[in-house]
Amino acid sequence: MIQSRPDRYARVDGYILETRALFENMRIGLTASAALLLASQAVSQTQNGLTVMPVPTSVRPGTGRLAVDPSFSVAVTGFKDAAMERGIGRFVAELSRETGMLLKQKTAGSASPTLLIHTGHGRESVQRLGEDESYELAITESGAKLTAPSPLGVLYGLQTFLQLVETTPNGFSVPAVTIDDKPRFAWRGLLIDVGRHFIPLDVLKRNLDGMAAVKMNVLHLHLYDNEGFRVESRRFPRLQEAGSDGLYYTQAEIREFVAYAHDRGIRVVPEFEMPGHSRSLFAGYPELASGPGPYKVEPGGADAVMNPTREETYKFIDKFIGEMAELFPDEYFHIGGDEVNGSQWDANVTIQAFIHSHGMKTNQDLQAYFNQRLQKILNKHHKIMMGWDEVLHPDLPRTVVVQSWRGQESLANAARQGYNSLLSFGYYLDLIWPASRHYAVDPMSGGAALLNPEEKSRIIGGEACMWSEWVTPENIDSRIWPRNAAIAERLWSSPEVQDTGAMYARLDKLSRRLEWLGLTHRSSVILALYRMAGTNDITALRTLADVIEPVKDYTRMNSVKTVWDFRAPLFFLVDIAPPESDQARHFREAVQKFIGSGYKDKATEGEIRTRLAAWRDNDARLHPLLEQSFLLNELAPLSEDLSTLAAAGLLALDYFDKSVPSPNSWRVQQLALVERAKTPKADLLLMVVEPSRQLIEGSGEQTR
Amino acid sequence: MIQSRPDRYARVDGYILETRALFENMRIGLTASAALLLASQAVSQTQNGLTVMPVPTSVRPGTGRLAVDPSFSVAVTGFKDAAMERGIGRFVAELSRETGMLLKQKTAGSASPTLLIHTGHGRESVQRLGEDESYELAITESGAKLTAPSPLGVLYGLQTFLQLVETTPNGFSVPAVTIDDKPRFAWRGLLIDVGRHFIPLDVLKRNLDGMAAVKMNVLHLHLYDNEGFRVESRRFPRLQEAGSDGLYYTQAEIREFVAYAHDRGIRVVPEFEMPGHSRSLFAGYPELASGPGPYKVEPGGADAVMNPTREETYKFIDKFIGEMAELFPDEYFHIGGDEVNGSQWDANVTIQAFIHSHGMKTNQDLQAYFNQRLQKILNKHHKIMMGWDEVLHPDLPRTVVVQSWRGQESLANAARQGYNSLLSFGYYLDLIWPASRHYAVDPMSGGAALLNPEEKSRIIGGEACMWSEWVTPENIDSRIWPRNAAIAERLWSSPEVQDTGAMYARLDKLSRRLEWLGLTHRSSVILALYRMAGTNDITALRTLADVIEPVKDYTRMNSVKTVWDFRAPLFFLVDIAPPESDQARHFREAVQKFIGSGYKDKATEGEIRTRLAAWRDNDARLHPLLEQSFLLNELAPLSEDLSTLAAAGLLALDYFDKSVPSPNSWRVQQLALVERAKTPKADLLLMVVEPSRQLIEGSGEQTR
Repeated sequence: MIQSRPDRYARVDGYILETRALFENMRIGLTASAALLLASQAVSQTQNGLTVMPVPTSVRPGTGRLAVDPSFSVAVTGFKDAAMERGIGRFVAELSRETGMLLKQKTAGSASPTLLIHTGHGRESVQRLGEDESYELAITESGAKLTAPSPLGVLYGLQTFLQLVETTPNGFSVPAVTIDDKPRFAWRGLLIDVGRHFIPLDVLKRNLDGMAAVKMNVLHLHLYDNEGFRVESRRFPRLQEAGSDGLYYTQAEIREFVAYAHDRGIRVVPEFEMPGHSRSLFAGYPELASGPGPYKVEPGGADAVMNPTREETYKFIDKFIGEMAELFPDEYFHIGGDEVNGSQWDANVTIQAFIHSHGMKTNQDLQAYFNQRLQKILNKHHKIMMGWDEVLHPDLPRTVVVQSWRGQESLANAARQGYNSLLSFGYYLDLIWPASRHYAVDPMSGGAALLNPEEKSRIIGGEACMWSEWVTPENIDSRIWPRNAAIAERLWSSPEVQDTGAMYARLDKLSRRLEWLGLTHRSSVILALYRMAGTNDITALRTLADVIEPVKDYTRMNSVKTVWDFRAPLFFLVDIAPPESDQARHFREAVQKFIGSGYKDKATEGEIRTRLAAWRDNDARLHPLLEQSFLLNELAPLSEDLSTLAAAGLLALDYFDKSVPSPNSWRVQQLALVERAKTPKADLLLMVVEPSRQLIEGSGEQTR
Repeated sequence: MIQSRPDRYARVDGYILETRALFENMRIGLTASAALLLASQAVSQTQNGLTVMPVPTSVRPGTGRLAVDPSFSVAVTGFKDAAMERGIGRFVAELSRETGMLLKQKTAGSASPTLLIHTGHGRESVQRLGEDESYELAITESGAKLTAPSPLGVLYGLQTFLQLVETTPNGFSVPAVTIDDKPRFAWRGLLIDVGRHFIPLDVLKRNLDGMAAVKMNVLHLHLYDNEGFRVESRRFPRLQEAGSDGLYYTQAEIREFVAYAHDRGIRVVPEFEMPGHSRSLFAGYPELASGPGPYKVEPGGADAVMNPTREETYKFIDKFIGEMAELFPDEYFHIGGDEVNGSQWDANVTIQAFIHSHGMKTNQDLQAYFNQRLQKILNKHHKIMMGWDEVLHPDLPRTVVVQSWRGQESLANAARQGYNSLLSFGYYLDLIWPASRHYAVDPMSGGAALLNPEEKSRIIGGEACMWSEWVTPENIDSRIWPRNAAIAERLWSSPEVQDTGAMYARLDKLSRRLEWLGLTHRSSVILALYRMAGTNDITALRTLADVIEPVKDYTRMNSVKTVWDFRAPLFFLVDIAPPESDQARHFREAVQKFIGSGYKDKATEGEIRTRLAAWRDNDARLHPLLEQSFLLNELAPLSEDLSTLAAAGLLALDYFDKSVPSPNSWRVQQLALVERAKTPKADLLLMVVEPSRQLIEGSGEQTR
């Protein structure tokens, strides 16, 4: 059987169902997001008056401000080492970029430094889960003091300080404030899938810098999948030679990368998928597979799973894990274990005979047997085993950590059964949800809300997941950022921090700041639009691109005609457009405000009109450009929809202005256009449909 | 005597005078640029129908186009080595970025490759001046062939291919064409001053990539100046230890950097300034100086020159040059030699005695003596000596190369006296001229036009100069690019290529392409505006920033109140704003077109109105922002001027529309506003003053 797409996509319905439950009475997707926004209208100012993200545990405002000027200096008392110096060096460099001042690192015995840092002891050579990450940052008009039990807290406190810097009429400064801060969860991760599309280390590094900025502490590298094997093995070199297109990390690069992450307070947890999702292994070592092969890394290749009945398989695994366990010093080691397609096991007579001769009943039992053996191998190499939901089986020791991608119910199950577990369900960045939707997912809500305190303590955090079916080095930043910061805040801040409007205010500011780190989530979009247009004037194209979003969930994968080709260029607007349209969000907010005013708020109406007029006139401007580029001509219907919708919205406003309800027949006609505009085109959604519909509907009801 | 600014600034009048001569009857500066633009209105399409920059020597159009799609492949016949592979690798990577396709480097024996490369032999391990840089690129519908005698030509041909790629309705493709190309001058350089402000190697590297894109072949590194010494010496470590703020290149870094440049066909020529501009040397080795010291690297430090009368000086120089001659493999070695301030020599009795006892008359004679000794030392270390104008002296051998910064007359003088020479006068990027003004400077015009053929052959090229008084790693790209490409074209293309309008069309496209190389000349401006505003909405600020330019020539340096402080932050709009406003240029062009139509072109009038209306309304929008930021409040008068001027322009248009001449009294009043708006504010010039004046003036004369 030819596998047309990864199994994960077969489970779409299951997801959506659970999501539905989560959002309870809210309508899912856009509507849910709009509802959340509506709910948050009242409180649009930022939490504590600060825009630090994630929101700190405790903030006590002081009086006045501390200037940040060219005389800025840092001093350190207590423990100090080279890693700390590097951390302060990065802080000073970033402060320089942020302010445009040519600040130097001056740590040596400054008498009255601007910032005094004190910490008690050094860091462990390998960062452990659950180290003390707390810090206290006390800022007065005359100076700042950052105190933390460990240098980890110092790193976090420095990030907080950077986020406090503001441009004021009197110079750059930070507000006087005392912040006590520590994370809610010990495991705050981001998974990046480098298997399906290779992501170069410089791109990963700037994402580490972004993670550090939002106090995330685990980078989970999904190091291979069916489409490619991405790390050099010296014991089994055909893994990378036959299993990749030449794009993989050398061991020297991995070591340097792990050190780079460690410097930033980030653990690197490797994932080596077994026994499924591992076709790229079999390209070089077909004897590991359950089927006859041959195996190649190519689009639409045969499904393949390891053969857990041969002793040679475990010998390979032992040697391979031994090598990788040394390369990746973290205590945790992820073995995947998800979505094992049983067809190869079913088709293999020897494997079936093995199952029966060992008293097992199902393929699941065979996977459990495999996992038990795996766990022993990991144990031998001093690693704690992690796996996805499917590894959960009564025969496994309770030391295994379960990562839940299937739902909050399975997270709670794992915790109830005694396993440490973390949540990734609800945090899949590749599903192209709005930040607000991820933000609403709490590891302790859903099934976990019913756990007792001991069981709850087993929920150790969560991980955002960047699966890379549709991700390249060019667009990955825009898929991760800024939305990942909302998940980072969910995992760091108090569960009471819930105000979506305030979250977006912080996110908007942070998104801009992340650019100083070299992240390209904003700039890459512009460059790609220029490429698509092939010309210097992209004004009209940007107007359209600013109000669309890629389709959500697995819609795009399910619309692939034959097989998903991971080698195909990703250069269409769906690949480029940010997952969340800020302009559409602001437009929705404005329409809500206008409706909330009983259609009386003239200033807001003016804003709405300006936008609508620009959109109405845009199609005529954009049309010639769309015809000039093979990358753009699929956008023609979308551009027409935008203009049509905007024209209807303007007419609706005219009815409000005249205080005359719109005729029913007109509304019926316009709402048909709304329906048409709801349909995705070129795998893109027009994100101003719903507020336009509200204006049209409202124009019938209004009495002014 | 405290030196308030480098001597170079004392010579401003001399410059301007010569510039005046150069532009003959044109008014200098803005007016000259406007006049050039006016002259080029007629031919606004691009040279040969292509947008390759620099314009190739010969272009023969073919029929049809060659597709550039995911099957793109490259094959090599003839000579091949690792450097060539790397070059092709960079080409494929850039083509991938440019197209968004995940292209792989497939060079091995492709049967019918998209691009076939043939070259005869390998490159010299040290690139020489005057190597054959020619190439032929023949593109048909079925494939492309790139032939070059040396891999240098291959590198250039690949750059040309990249620039030919276009987005079309049917995919990416290049036009069928045959291009024969070779440079006009052998020395096409860019000087970067890393002494006054340190520029990190990653910034220099992306500028090397930019140079390679426009076929420049020399990076001249001005490695120290009074403000800092930037390269590690192992023999004299106090050079970098006492002579810098810790910011310098290690020898290992230099070696890697030189190899990086060599891979891209770029020579690295080091400059070590002697005997002047060298205060940073004396911080560690005061015994080299002519005055008693002490010497420190700090703003406003004492002027200082080497002591050429002590034998120890030459012992130092011999050892130091020996070390640097090995580190920098290029055949040429620049010893500076400009602007020797005689005051220290005058004040030193021993030096004066030396002059008299050796039968010399002036300090100039002493410098010539110094240079002769220097030349012998360089000779011993197998280097050809280069120096600025001032080294020219009858006693020096004719092997010395003279770099002319004082004017085209001194360039011609050097050539006449038998010296190889190159032009930098007219190519100073730090003077913030428009690209068109640099473009109009030809090494063979001015004094050189009168030389005989043999003398002319001694003019070997030119060098753009990026002096870094006002330059940081943040803004350097925007000071160099895209204007440097106009100079690159002047030095590569035929002297007949003169059309300024066509040059700007190429430059606009190239400027965008340069971003794929990681150059930040466009993106850095946006980031800095966000910093200055401290808020997410910078629309109104951009509207103002888009029509201003920093003051020209040395105006800014001359307006420094006490001493120029090279440590001061460079974060004002004058530091951020691009040297040339594209919007203002387009506005000037539109107004010219409108005037040229006898004020009848309604479409153009509409465009002008739209812009004027936006500017008129901008001050009200921008004003609140200006009050919030210490970096912005100095812009208030400028913002007012823009709105006032735009309002006047709109009224002028109204007179045209009514076919009624504007009253004289009104014009007098408006022209007073124009005068006010001409004055620089915050070291910035409003670049739409002149076209606004033309509209106002014109409204009085018109009969429609």
